[in-house]
Formats: sequence, C-alpha cells, structure tokens
Amino acid sequence: MDKLTLKSERETALYEDLGFAKVDHSRYSRQGFNEVVFGAGKTTEQVVQILKSLSSSDKNIMATRVGLDTYKEVLKEIPEAKYYELARIISIEKEEIKDQDKFILVLAAGTSDINVAEEAAVTAEIMGNKVERAYDVGVAGIHRLFDQYEKMQEANVVITVAGMEGALTSVVAGLVSKPVISVPTSVGYGASFEGLTALLAMMNSCAKGVAVVNIDNGFGAGHLASIINKMNI
Amino acid sequence: MDKLTLKSERETALYEDLGFAKVDHSRYSRQGFNEVVFGAGKTTEQVVQILKSLSSSDKNIMATRVGLDTYKEVLKEIPEAKYYELARIISIEKEEIKDQDKFILVLAAGTSDINVAEEAAVTAEIMGNKVERAYDVGVAGIHRLFDQYEKMQEANVVITVAGMEGALTSVVAGLVSKPVISVPTSVGYGASFEGLTALLAMMNSCAKGVAVVNIDNGFGAGHLASIINKMNI
Amino acid sequence: MDKLTLKSERETALYEDLGFAKVDHSRYSRQGFNEVVFGAGKTTEQVVQILKSLSSSDKNIMATRVGLDTYKEVLKEIPEAKYYELARIISIEKEEIKDQDKFILVLAAGTSDINVAEEAAVTAEIMGNKVERAYDVGVAGIHRLFDQYEKMQEANVVITVAGMEGALTSVVAGLVSKPVISVPTSVGYGASFEGLTALLAMMNSCAKGVAVVNIDNGFGAGHLASIINKMNI
Amino acid sequence: MDKLTLKSERETALYEDLGFAKVDHSRYSRQGFNEVVFGAGKTTEQVVQILKSLSSSDKNIMATRVGLDTYKEVLKEIPEAKYYELARIISIEKEEIKDQDKFILVLAAGTSDINVAEEAAVTAEIMGNKVERAYDVGVAGIHRLFDQYEKMQEANVVITVAGMEGALTSVVAGLVSKPVISVPTSVGYGASFEGLTALLAMMNSCAKGVAVVNIDNGFGAGHLASIINKMNI
Amino acid sequence: MDKLTLKSERETALYEDLGFAKVDHSRYSRQGFNEVVFGAGKTTEQVVQILKSLSSSDKNIMATRVGLDTYKEVLKEIPEAKYYELARIISIEKEEIKDQDKFILVLAAGTSDINVAEEAAVTAEIMGNKVERAYDVGVAGIHRLFDQYEKMQEANVVITVAGMEGALTSVVAGLVSKPVISVPTSVGYGASFEGLTALLAMMNSCAKGVAVVNIDNGFGAGHLASIINKMNI
Amino acid sequence: MDKLTLKSERETALYEDLGFAKVDHSRYSRQGFNEVVFGAGKTTEQVVQILKSLSSSDKNIMATRVGLDTYKEVLKEIPEAKYYELARIISIEKEEIKDQDKFILVLAAGTSDINVAEEAAVTAEIMGNKVERAYDVGVAGIHRLFDQYEKMQEANVVITVAGMEGALTSVVAGLVSKPVISVPTSVGYGASFEGLTALLAMMNSCAKGVAVVNIDNGFGAGHLASIINKMNI
Amino acid sequence: MDKLTLKSERETALYEDLGFAKVDHSRYSRQGFNEVVFGAGKTTEQVVQILKSLSSSDKNIMATRVGLDTYKEVLKEIPEAKYYELARIISIEKEEIKDQDKFILVLAAGTSDINVAEEAAVTAEIMGNKVERAYDVGVAGIHRLFDQYEKMQEANVVITVAGMEGALTSVVAGLVSKPVISVPTSVGYGASFEGLTALLAMMNSCAKGVAVVNIDNGFGAGHLASIINKMNI
Amino acid sequence: MDKLTLKSERETALYEDLGFAKVDHSRYSRQGFNEVVFGAGKTTEQVVQILKSLSSSDKNIMATRVGLDTYKEVLKEIPEAKYYELARIISIEKEEIKDQDKFILVLAAGTSDINVAEEAAVTAEIMGNKVERAYDVGVAGIHRLFDQYEKMQEANVVITVAGMEGALTSVVAGLVSKPVISVPTSVGYGASFEGLTALLAMMNSCAKGVAVVNIDNGFGAGHLASIINKMNI
Repeated sequence: MDKLTLKSERETALYEDLGFAKVDHSRYSRQGFNEVVFGAGKTTEQVVQILKSLSSSDKNIMATRVGLDTYKEVLKEIPEAKYYELARIISIEKEEIKDQDKFILVLAAGTSDINVAEEAAVTAEIMGNKVERAYDVGVAGIHRLFDQYEKMQEANVVITVAGMEGALTSVVAGLVSKPVISVPTSVGYGASFEGLTALLAMMNSCAKGVAVVNIDNGFGAGHLASIINKMNI
Repeated sequence: MDKLTLKSERETALYEDLGFAKVDHSRYSRQGFNEVVFGAGKTTEQVVQILKSLSSSDKNIMATRVGLDTYKEVLKEIPEAKYYELARIISIEKEEIKDQDKFILVLAAGTSDINVAEEAAVTAEIMGNKVERAYDVGVAGIHRLFDQYEKMQEANVVITVAGMEGALTSVVAGLVSKPVISVPTSVGYGASFEGLTALLAMMNSCAKGVAVVNIDNGFGAGHLASIINKMNI
Repeated sequence: MDKLTLKSERETALYEDLGFAKVDHSRYSRQGFNEVVFGAGKTTEQVVQILKSLSSSDKNIMATRVGLDTYKEVLKEIPEAKYYELARIISIEKEEIKDQDKFILVLAAGTSDINVAEEAAVTAEIMGNKVERAYDVGVAGIHRLFDQYEKMQEANVVITVAGMEGALTSVVAGLVSKPVISVPTSVGYGASFEGLTALLAMMNSCAKGVAVVNIDNGFGAGHLASIINKMNI
Repeated sequence: MDKLTLKSERETALYEDLGFAKVDHSRYSRQGFNEVVFGAGKTTEQVVQILKSLSSSDKNIMATRVGLDTYKEVLKEIPEAKYYELARIISIEKEEIKDQDKFILVLAAGTSDINVAEEAAVTAEIMGNKVERAYDVGVAGIHRLFDQYEKMQEANVVITVAGMEGALTSVVAGLVSKPVISVPTSVGYGASFEGLTALLAMMNSCAKGVAVVNIDNGFGAGHLASIINKMNI
Repeated sequence: MDKLTLKSERETALYEDLGFAKVDHSRYSRQGFNEVVFGAGKTTEQVVQILKSLSSSDKNIMATRVGLDTYKEVLKEIPEAKYYELARIISIEKEEIKDQDKFILVLAAGTSDINVAEEAAVTAEIMGNKVERAYDVGVAGIHRLFDQYEKMQEANVVITVAGMEGALTSVVAGLVSKPVISVPTSVGYGASFEGLTALLAMMNSCAKGVAVVNIDNGFGAGHLASIINKMNI
Repeated sequence: MDKLTLKSERETALYEDLGFAKVDHSRYSRQGFNEVVFGAGKTTEQVVQILKSLSSSDKNIMATRVGLDTYKEVLKEIPEAKYYELARIISIEKEEIKDQDKFILVLAAGTSDINVAEEAAVTAEIMGNKVERAYDVGVAGIHRLFDQYEKMQEANVVITVAGMEGALTSVVAGLVSKPVISVPTSVGYGASFEGLTALLAMMNSCAKGVAVVNIDNGFGAGHLASIINKMNI
Repeated sequence: MDKLTLKSERETALYEDLGFAKVDHSRYSRQGFNEVVFGAGKTTEQVVQILKSLSSSDKNIMATRVGLDTYKEVLKEIPEAKYYELARIISIEKEEIKDQDKFILVLAAGTSDINVAEEAAVTAEIMGNKVERAYDVGVAGIHRLFDQYEKMQEANVVITVAGMEGALTSVVAGLVSKPVISVPTSVGYGASFEGLTALLAMMNSCAKGVAVVNIDNGFGAGHLASIINKMNI
Repeated sequence: MDKLTLKSERETALYEDLGFAKVDHSRYSRQGFNEVVFGAGKTTEQVVQILKSLSSSDKNIMATRVGLDTYKEVLKEIPEAKYYELARIISIEKEEIKDQDKFILVLAAGTSDINVAEEAAVTAEIMGNKVERAYDVGVAGIHRLFDQYEKMQEANVVITVAGMEGALTSVVAGLVSKPVISVPTSVGYGASFEGLTALLAMMNSCAKGVAVVNIDNGFGAGHLASIINKMNI
C-alpha cells in the first residue's frame, strides 16, 4: 500500500489535552527541557492550568511574559513558584544547578535593554547554566565594553542585547571566538521601528559567528545559549 | 590623566596594509580561523592580492562568493588553490581534517537552495568539521524529511536552508534538541521578496533553539556551526 | 444610442436605505447567505439597526467582531439572538442544520489563535456546515498535529489558523488533497509585524492547494470553506 | 519508551533520490496529481532528469516556468511532451479529459495578465478540468466584464487574475456565489511594487468568498481551482 | 550685486505672529479661501487663539480635526461658530452659498468611511459648493453603486472615499468623464495597514482621470474638488 | 424576480474583441477620449493591432510607453502616426486644436524628470489643450521657480513633476489657487526608493489643493489636467 | 604575544557603576559635554540616581524626554535643577553662557513641531550656544519663511524641524551656505508614517549641505549644531 | 495691494537656460561653490553642455556619477578637465588649495565602500579642503580602527562610510568630539536592502554628534564636511 502514514510510538502519553492547549509532556525527553509556557496572549487562568499540568514533572518548569498578577494566582496553586520581576518569568525549580566552570555572558547595551537581558539570563539559569551579566556597555562609551574584554574571552557563549542600531553585536563578535547570540530589542524611537532596525543591523553584522533571534526574544537567546553551553558541560 | 587610550599590544604585526584593504593576520589567533575573503564587490585583482597576503599562513584559507574566472586568476598565483563550484568557494587547504564523530547536518528544503547549502557545508568542512547533507527535504513532502529523523538526532548542530516560507526550520527545530542555525534563501518569487519572507518566518519560529543569519548567508551559518561544533571536539 | 446603461431589474426591492447603510436584502438570492454585519467600526446603535432590518429574513443572520455589550443591546430588540463569546459573533439562527457527512476541519496552531479559529468555525456552522476543530497543533510539537492525520484525510475542506511563522499551513497542505484555506493571525511579537509575517509565509507555501485570506479574517475563511463544502452536499 | 518516532509505511518506494532532488513518486496517491516541476531556479538538465524520473507514471505530468529552450531539450528525451507557450508549461499528457459540465472560469483584467491567466488555465486543464477564459475584462470598462455575467453564474469556480490595483476581484466576488481564487500579477509600475499592491488589495477585498495566492502564481490558483472543481465531478 | 533677495510687497500685513503660529491673513487673496486650522496636534487654547485671529475676516473660516470639547471652548469666544459632528469641523460661516447647478458628488464605500466622507463634503460646502452624497455604495453590492449612475453623470467632480481595497475608485472612474478625487481611509484591519493598501490601490487605478490624497484626508479632497468646481461656476 | 441583472443597451457595438484585448470603442462617448493604449507589457504586434482597431475613429488616438522600434512598425500600417521621442508617445491626430486662452502649466524639478513631464504635456496636447512648460525649476535654486510666478498665476491647472524629495509640489501649491496635479518620478537613488519617497512626500504636502498620481505616471496627470481644463473651455 | 588587548589608561575613574547603568564620568573630557541622560524607557528612580551621580561635575548636565513628574522628583534631590516644559528637558546649569556673535537658527515648519524644535534649541543653549528661533515658517506660506531670509544668512548653523513632507529642509538648504541639520518629526497622519516620510524626503533633498538625524531627535540636532558652532567661537 | 510677489534683484544674470537645464550661475555667490553636475540620469551630451556653460567661471567645477566615456567626451571640449576614476568625478580645477592644518578624515569600513569614500574625499578636496583617508577599518577587526585613534582626535570633521550594519559610525562617534557625517552605502546583500539597513542603523546611532546623508551619497557628505571645515579655516 502506497499511502503515507506517520505516527508516534506512544502517542497517548505524549501530551495532556486541556481543550485550549495540548500540554506537551514529552518535550523534556525530546528537547531537553520541559515545554515553556509563553504567557503573552494567554489568560491568567490558562497559564495557571498549564503550569499545574506541567508541574507533575520532576524537572524545572517556567513561564515567560507573565506579570506579577498572574504570578500571584499561580502562587495559590503552586506555592513553590518563584517570580523574577525584571525578567517577568515564573519558575518552578526542582533541580539543583551543579557547579560549573563554563558560563554564558549576557551583555546589554543600555539600561532600557535590561528586561530583555534578564529574560535571557534567567532562562539560561533555570535551564541549569552559570550566567554572568554586564549591562550598560553600549558602544557609545566603548571603554565600558572593553573592561569586559577578559570576561568575554572566558565565556563559553555570549548573548548581546541591544536596541537602536544594535552595534554592540558587531563589536563583540569581532573580539571573541565563541558563538554570539544576538537579541535586538524594541528600545529606541523614530526610525528604530520598534526593533526592526536593530534586527536588520545584527543580521548584517560584518563580524562572524553571529546569529539573531526575534526582537525582544530574550527567552529564545537564553534557551539556545543553554543548548550550546550544555553541550560542553 | 583622564583621556581614554585604546591600543593593541603588538599592533604592527596585526595586519598588512594593501591600501584598499588591511589584511588581518591576527584573525586566526583571535577568532580561530584566518580572515575569510568576501569576494562580492571586490575585483579579481583585489581577491588575488588578499589571498596572496593571507597565504603565508600555515592554516586554511578561503574566499567566498567568487566565480570560476576569479578562481582561474588565483590559480596562476597559488597553484594549490581549490574551487568548489556549487559553493562558489576558493580554498587553500593546509590542515588535515582529523577523524571526528560529531558532525554538522545541513538540510536544504529544495533543489534551488543547494548553492547556499553548499556554501554552508563547504565552509564548515574547510574549517575542520565533518558535515552530512540532506537536500530537497522541504515540508511539502514531509516524509522525505522524516527519513532524516535518525540523522537529525545524531547531529551535533543542524543548519536549515530554505527559501519561500522557510517552514523547514520550525519543523526541524521541533524535532531536535541541538542548536539549529537557520539560513533564509532568496529562492522564491512574488511575495517572497527575495528572502525577506523566509527570514521573517524563521525569526518567528514557534519552535525553540533557533537563530537566524542573513539571507543566502551560507558562510555565516557554516562558520557559526563550526564554532559550536568544535567546542565539543 | 451608444451610451452605456447599467441597471438591476427590481432595484427598489434590493436594499433598505438606513442613511448610514444600504442593507442588502438581495444578498441571499445573489450569494447564498444574508449580508453579514461587520461590527468593527460601527456603533452599537448601527449594528442593532442593521440586524433589525435583516431579521425580516427567514434565513440565518450574523454579525462578526461584536462585543458582549453590543450583544446585550441586540438582545433587547431581538430576543432570539445568540452570542458566541470566543468567536465574538452574534447570530439569529432560523434554519436547522441538516445531518451531514462532509465536514470542514479547523486547525489552530496555538492557544492564542483560538479566537480567530472560532470565528471561522462558528461562521461555517451558522452557514449550515458540520465543523470539526483541533487546536494547539502547531508544528513545534508535530506529533500533536499528526494525531489529527486521519481527520485531515476525512475532511472536505481544511482551514489552518496560525500566527508567528505560519508553518502549520505548509505542513498540512503537504499532507492532504483537499482545499486548504489559510488564516494568518496577529499572534506573535517583534518581527511578526502583527500577522504580516504569517501572511507572507502562507502566501509562499511550498505546498500546493493553499489560498490565503486577510490577517485574523476567520470569517472570510469560514465563509469560503462553507461555499466550497456546500458545493458537495 | 517515550521517544517520538515518525515514519512512513513503505518509505523506500516513496521517492527517487536524484541527489539534487528527491522525486516524489507518492504525490499522486497522496494529493491526486503527480509532483509538478517548478522550473524557475533549476537548470535545464535538472528539469529534464526530474521529468524523466516522473514519466514512468501513467498519470499526467507537468513542469511550470520553463522556457522554449528547456522544452526543446525535454523533447529529445520525451517525444510526447507538449509545450504551452503563453503559459510556459511543459506537459506529458497520458489521461484523456472526460466530458464535463462544471467548468472553471479564468478572468484576466488586462492583456498583460494573460501569461499568468494561461498558467492557471492550462494547469487546470492538464489536471482534467474544463476551463473557460475571458480576458481584458478589467473594471475600467466594466461593461466588458458584465458581458461575462451569465458565464460567471454558470461557472463552478472563478479565478481572477489582475495586476495594478486588482479591483477585478472585489467586483467579481460581489456578483457570484462560487469560490473566487484571486491571483495578483506583477503587471503595473511605480507604486504597484511588482504585484504587492494587487496582493494587498485582494487580501482586503470587501466582497466575500475570496482567497488569494502568491503574485503571478497562476499554477497555484489553477491547482486549487482544480481540487475544488473535481470535488463536484 | 549678485545676491538673491526675495520678498513680498506688503509683508507686514500678511500674517499675525502669535508666537506659536503665524496666522496667514493673505491666504484668501492668494488661494481663494482663508487659512484652514488643522486641529490635530494643537492644544484647544491654540485652536481658539488662531480662530480668533482669523475671525476678523469677512469670509468663511474653518477648523478640521477638532473634537466637541474644543468646539465648546471656541463657542465661548466666537458664539456664531458651528460644529459638524460627523465631519469634526468647526466653521464660522459669513458668506451665503448661492444657488448652483454644478455639484460635487461624494461617494463612500462603507458605513465606517462616513466620517472622512463628511469631512470632504462639509469642507466643500463651507467653501461654497453644492454637494450631493451617496454612502455605503461599495463594490461588494455593485447594484447600490449603479443606482447612483445618473447622479455620477450629472456631477461636476466626484470624490470617492474608501478603505480596505479601495476598489470603488476604479469602478467609478471607469464610468464618468469628470475628475475623480480619491480618498483612501484607514478603515479595515490586518493587511489594510491603516489605509496604505487603499492608498496604493487607488494610485494604481486602471481607470483614468483619478488623483489621490492622503489617507483620511477628507479635507484635502473637499478643498481640491471645490477649487475645480468653482472654476466652472 | 429578485436576481440582479446588469447590462448595457448596445453591448455588441461597444468593443471589438481581438482575443488578447477587447478594444473599447465606446470610450470616447463615455469618457471624452478614445481608449489609450498602454504600451508597456504589450508586444509590438499587439500595439499595432489595437491601434489599427482604434484608428477607425475620427477622434485623436494615442499610445504611451512605446519605443521607437514599435513606432516604426506602427508606421508601416498607419502612415499618419506621429512619434514624440522624449514622451515616448505615438499619436494619430485627427482633430485640430482650437485656439485657447486657458493653459496647463507643466513644471519639472530637474533635467532627469523631463521624460515624465513630456508624457504629461504631450498627453494634454493630444487631448486638445494648450500647454506651457518650465523645466529644471526645482527648489534647490528657488529663484528659477519664482521666475515662473506670473505664469503659475495665469495657468488654469498646474502639473508638478519631481523625483527625490518632491518638494516642488508643496512650494508651488502654496503659491497658486489652481488645482495642482503632482507626479512623483523615479528619479533619484538610495533612499528615494524609485519614486516612493517623492510619492509619500507629495501625499503629505502641507499645502492644499494637491492630488497625486502614480510614480512616473505623466499620462495620468496629463489626462486629469485635460479633463479639468476642458471643463472651462 | 599576538593576542589583542585593548584598555583605557585610568579605567577606574572613567565611570560609576550603578548596576543598572554605568555613568560615564569621562564623557566631558572625551566629547566636550557630560553624558546626557535619555529619559525615555528609564524609571523616575533611575533618572534621579544618574543625575545625582553626574551632578558632582562642575559642568552643565541635562536629561531629555522627561516629564514634569520626573522633574518634581529630581527637584527633591537637586534643588538647582531647571525644567523646560516644551522641550521636556531637565538641566543643572553650572556654567555661564558667554556673549556670542555666532548663533544657531532653529526653524520649525508648523506649530505641532515646536516641541521637537525646543528640544533642539534648549539643548544647544545648555551646551553654551546662542540660539535664535523662527516657528511656523513652513513652505505652504513661503513668505513667512522668506521673512527669515536675512537671519538665515547670518546664522552659523541652521536646524530645520518639519514633519509631513519635510519640504522646509530643501528650500532652506537652497538659500544658505551654512550646514543644515534636519530633524524629521512624527507630525502628520496617514502616509506620513509617523515621520518616516519626512525622514526619507530630507534624506533625498535636492539641495546640498544637509544631513539628517532620527525622527523627533531634537537633542541630536541641537548637540551636533553645538559641536559645529563651537568650533567657531 | 495684498498680492504676494517674490523676486530676485538681478534675475536675468542668475542662470543660463539650456532648455533641458537652467544652469545656475549664482550658486557660487549664494552657496560658496559652483553648481555641481549630477551626472546620473543625464546624457553625455547634457553633461558636456552644462559643464561648458559652467566653465566660464574662475572657480572650481565638478560633475559626479560620470563614467570614463563621458569624461572622454568632456575632454574634447574642455582639455583641462580631470577624472578621478574611483570617485567617478570630473573636475575643472581653477583654484589652488592653500596649505591647511585642519583636515577632514574619511573612514571607510570595507574595501567595497571605497568608491563612495572617494566620492566624499575628492569632493572635499576639489572644494578646497585637506583630506586624510583610512580605509578598511570596519569594526569586525576593531584594532585596525583604533590605530586611527590619534588621527580621529586631530581631524576637524569625520566622515564615516559603511554598508551592511554601519556600526562604524557609532563606534567612531563615541570616540570623537567632532562632527561625524555618516554615509550609508549599498554594500551588502540580503537583509542589507541596498543600504537601507545601514541608513537606519546610522540614524539610530546611540552615540551623539552624528548626522546622516543618503545611501551612497559621498558627494553630499564631502560637501557638508567642506562647509563645516571651511568655517574654521
């Protein structure tokens, strides 16, 4: 018979169907971390239900883009839940982070980029990585960046977070031989077009070893950096 | 004294000034591979001169975006130069690639994406990596992609190369727990806007662990994949 | 005489002129369904008046993009009016839906796409179709989609609803031989540009048999799917 | 065991691997028509090889976006191949088209849109449909369009092909109760942006029952119209 | 002496300098109507002051884009001021409109376009023209438009007001031999991009005799139509 | 009976069907000038055939966007055809232009805008208008423009033709009380985006009485100016 | 040793690290003015802390894009702080402005551009320049601009501030031989795209001697004008 | 009398009217340099005629964007004309450049940016300035840029020329206290969008003292730098 059939071996166990969501319980075994709840566009009720479904796991769990109000509702159901205010992340941390040498360095160009940088940093930490931060190191005062030179050389992966023209990425990538994951932010005004200019600029970096994630996608950068970093631990 | 001064310790040795170009002889020690010549926008004469300047190195050397005619001129000056026609890369290979287990997998959605995919694959090979390829595995006939499922699980880094709507990236990234470096290509027509649609789609991938390089930038993807892969060898 | 004249045979009966709107009473005979009230940009008062004008019909009537407050006002005038909260649709249902074999399948990529998906599904139902739904089946966890494989084969028409990179459309269209009507949604952030990326991606689908409607236009997809489906009943 | 596995039942038979392409031999059984060769971006040699691989089928075969030169090369290998010059399509027709009542109507706004219209019409014919054409019926001289009024009512599916502002689509969709598949073309200049304006306009059609395919994608419209039309034969 | 000098003959009388604005008292003699106050972006205080400065004129005066609150403040200072709520226009009417044969016809595609249409119509009326209106005559129910056919032929100038795909313009311009001034509106959603799609579509009208003003610029259309119409009175 | 029917009174006489084109023989009576052949995108053969079909008229006939080669072919069939090289227009002039007072003034900003300006000017002349020209009067040397001040005041309609930033339009419209038809041209480079910048700038003119046609659409401006001008003759 | 090292001579003194910000205390010696606090995107608390850190300097200090509420908080800590309401600037002025001949002229097209113009003017004043202003001098009433002709000739640097089509820049730059710094503003609607049109138009100015800063970036223009002007004092 | 009149005192002498161009003979006295011929979009014949008209001046004359072929034709008429091949500039140099201390520094990021950089440098030289150049100093190898640190401090004006992401501008502007005129170039590919990305990035520079000219507009930057530099000589 010629018809194509595609299936999974143990499909019934793979996810829990909440109606509005199919909570993926095989994500950890398939991708190394539990399904992460993207809070934006979901009701508080939905976030709570999905986190409860996931919390049967003995691995770390997290939700991004969630406000303090949502956290308070989650806390009623899951008392061990933690909240990272700058990063706007809820976590349920069940694993201990072991001592590590290899670390991820998160560099942010300006004060206004800190929320996105923290989303990246906290994500990587919850996923079990050691993270170092250096903020407000944009190229307008490049000596502030060069004071991080030694740390850049020691890092295993570098995340650059910048809005406006995003020049931080090119300068950093020219100085290191490690992967540089670049996050454009919506910081800026006028012709920054809410992050589009930074995104395009990072895409066109004259330096090598760079790849880019979506505007303000600190989570995506932290996750990818974690995957790369943990290949080495 | 308060004035900022910035300098390099052995600046004289760092590059050779050809007038139209400052050939960077410290790139290898700084970034782990010699400066790569980007052929587009340079005259044949300029490519030949820069390659000659670089060829004093005992490490591998390469130029991208070069046509067969340029290669023929290079050959007159550097007889050991090789040419990869699909990838449009000239190499001067001085190092042997050692046996490796860990490999980079390059997946291309369609036949027309092969040139970009080869630029990625050949770049990674010249930089000392083992590379596997699977081409024409776009999601329109998804069984062709699933036949690569085992190989995807074994790969250390995955590069996805796709034009049009770039859906290959999301499907692949949902199936693997390794870094996925995604290259949008200018393959398509109409509302593909010469790769912009694929770039935006990859940027917005609903799957995690993905980062994106510039349109048709096979070299950038190959280079970044190489950096990540060699962290593990 | 050479002058062009264009007219309708019974123009006086064709519509009712409310001043701010010309309510089209010939739409059913011309297009198979009564004029549908597009609530966005209309005052509550205007929606109520138009629905009253239409409700003389013995066929089904509906208004889209209407909030609960508008519904409450409508209810005062038209007690049999129903409200679909997720779909944001008011209906006045005068016809019974007959038993049908052929159904329309509505697939939504994520939880945040459900409102648009419901607009499509409810529209098709009010227009007299049998509809099946499968939500949160985005390609990041593709096994959730493949569990719908049998249902996809049985469906007469498939509607795919997705934001971000819209990859669901290409994967589904590669698996079925039925018409795929694709609705990009404004779900996403940053470089999703409020649905533009999904729209462009769906437009460039490498799979065949796909056509696309406007961003968030669940109604349009449901209506077109209904037209196609009812050709077969 | 929790790991996801996805496979096809008879994978070895599903496609032939030509190296640069994996020719899909299960497409007919999966989607009702053989894989169609998209000629743009492929070498003549590649088109010939793929057509030869496909021509073992006893069903119709076609390639789009191919020039006369490519056809001449194909003819050397496959003497029964036909060429449609306006449509730029090569076909190998092995099935007879049976008598049909239900037809697809292809409407083109201007003389310059005829190539795209023919790509749609010829595609639908090779796929076994009866097709009627009416060209140069743009809304600037709307009486030319209204002379097609009876034919529009009789058609089972309507394809509208228009560049510039694409207004043909809205006018036609307001007059018929059948599916309208709309193809924006790159005909125009200045602010037509090579079809983008027509695409956006069709997307925003104030009339219902419309869906849109990519700019100049006559093939896609013809194919989708064929799927819909054959549901009724 | 070679230096360029440019001056006006009676510059002192030409405008009154309010500091934040230089109120142009020569506009009537130069352009046939007093300076019109564009209310958006000005404080209520500023609008009042400019209107007071202008109200020394014995010709008609108007302000556009002003809310009811601003009108109430104006009324305190200028009791004869009138307010057109739909058009959001304040006027101080000092001239009588004489009987006229030649009229401007304002056509609006949908109910949501009425505000812009009224801005155009009221502007033309205050400037001394006879205006006829026909609203909700979009091409989705084209018989509603054709019922205006005789009126279109009699009009001296036609203004078309439409959002979404703006097809009204092309259909109307194909039917009349008078100037068609076209106003795209921001009515629509998704890929209407707040009027950009309508603007581009009108720009590319396949019909002749059309020119376009800015999105939602009812005033500009009304003013230009007035200039043209009064050339003939 | 409720069904809508739309028809023309003498449809058979309205156009000649050439297969690839329906030549509109009622255009003159409907719109005051014969159908104008838009040469771009048509083959020489098609242009010749359409002109021959139209040349039975005793009114003026014209084709735009045609090269010298096309003209030579036309000449073989229609010996009285004329060619305007700068304007790229073929005409068959059967009517005499009567003496007129009222004229259209065509202003072009730079030398490179002359082709578009001539398309406008020649179009208006063939349509029976008196036209005056002033070229290279861009605002960078504004005294060149002011030397045309008297002529601007005397003109009945003004056409402004400009590329780059299109500032000519605003300055002119601030000085005259006549309709200003504005043609953006594709003259410029870099961020002029082939006329888009000029188009947007003209759209946003701070001066009143302006409407805009498509980029490089000299014909459209000439035609509209002719309609307006002839209302007064 | 080949490794690149980059450092500053007295790095410890160069900035104060507040955690969320690295306050640059060497900016004055490096760039001639203290670091300017960009208030947008910073909390009131952050602005206060950074200003306090900077206020140890004996040179002028300023913060831009700050509201009155922030100023009130600053005042509690720094009683000598001043607030410029239109410009939305806080200053701590410690230097006296000496008598100067050379001045910067700030020209604003309309009343709504005044805030941006004031940001430019006040910035230049705090940086020690003499500034002259002329507002509401847009080209729609060009005699208002020409009344500034003498002042334009006397100015040392000219700043033009305009939204909509930004034509002011080209006209001014054609009349002066001094540097023209051009600020597009977000004033306008519809196709002004929040300043993009003005930005593009200014970029394409047909007049020479112009350079452009970001949309609404009065500060940047004022700062650059100050640098240029002070080269001459 | 209230009518506005604008005129120049000696208008007859101000320009020579060549029909296709009005050659501005008062530009030198008005703006400090003769009218510069922009060669792009002009015929060789037109360039020759305008240069001949201008060459009666005893000041320097130049034409930009001219090829070698045009130069050869110019040479026949004006034997003293010079050609700068990289810059694509023709000059007729009648003035001697005096010894100067103050110089303009032109920095170019890459080898492919040299043509634009030379257009800037040669323009400034012909206008009487001392110019220093440093090419291939992009931020990917930032030590190459820092070797220019002393020269940057000495320069009076700095021009930065860069394509791709244009990061050179921000780094340079952070290091100097002189005006930085920034030229985006069309160097790059994919998401560089022919210079748009560099333009936007430079517009959003986080460093101060920057203004931007059009893509590839070396002439504009050179001219503006000259105006600024000569204020100080």
